[in-house]
Amino acid sequence: MFNDEYFMRMALQQAHNAFEQDEVPVGCIVVSNDRIIAKAHNLTETLNDVTAHAEMQAITAAANFLGGKYLQNCTLYVTLEPCVMCCGALNWSQISKVVIGARDEQRGFINKNLSLHPKTEIVLGVLENECSALVKDFFKNKR
Amino acid sequence: MFNDEYFMRMALQQAHNAFEQDEVPVGCIVVSNDRIIAKAHNLTETLNDVTAHAEMQAITAAANFLGGKYLQNCTLYVTLEPCVMCCGALNWSQISKVVIGARDEQRGFINKNLSLHPKTEIVLGVLENECSALVKDFFKNKR
Repeated sequence: MFNDEYFMRMALQQAHNAFEQDEVPVGCIVVSNDRIIAKAHNLTETLNDVTAHAEMQAITAAANFLGGKYLQNCTLYVTLEPCVMCCGALNWSQISKVVIGARDEQRGFINKNLSLHPKTEIVLGVLENECSALVKDFFKNKR
Repeated sequence: MFNDEYFMRMALQQAHNAFEQDEVPVGCIVVSNDRIIAKAHNLTETLNDVTAHAEMQAITAAANFLGGKYLQNCTLYVTLEPCVMCCGALNWSQISKVVIGARDEQRGFINKNLSLHPKTEIVLGVLENECSALVKDFFKNKR
């Protein structure tokens, strides 16, 4: 039951919440031992803060929950490929696993030839179509 | 009087404050129209938060002061070359100018072939020796 798709669906729920608040719809959760220890969605518009990406908030919240800055035995599920900033933050966190929904060819870290921490396992393409459709819908409405 | 060296000295003071709190000694300030609108130093240990780099805090504080997320007509002075995370955040902020003290060959964004926003002017090497010496002293004491 607790597989990557199950948890990505929780991240997608966060992304839907962002959409409803007119924020670029990206959501994420952090899971430790099958328990959700952080959830967040993009809040850059609401907070007037470019650093308020879903991943940044979730990393801070998870570290706060754990009482330590390294996210050992944690998995982050995020609906859209992290940007350069979030890639850098995930790197510093030494998180164990990152599961990504949709690719972001233009803004994502992969096409910038960046990588996550050597300790970090990466899984791509979980619920990719749903994650991608939500972002496309958002920007279609903006035009 | 209000030249890059003047403001870098204020950033260095922040870095010294970090040193005294046993934090990696990096400090920065954000200046808008010759006025300091944000100052911060690294707080990753104190806050148990890998995202609590000086630049991240200063970007958030400056945007809060300005009431908008883009740091137009702002200059960030930072004692050490920003890492990948902070480079990404500075990119999103579209800040006008970034003045850097010491290079960080290993962790800095320049050797990762990343760049700041096309709108952002970069100045390197202001008070380089003092900025660099502080970091070296810190890690020498750690060994």
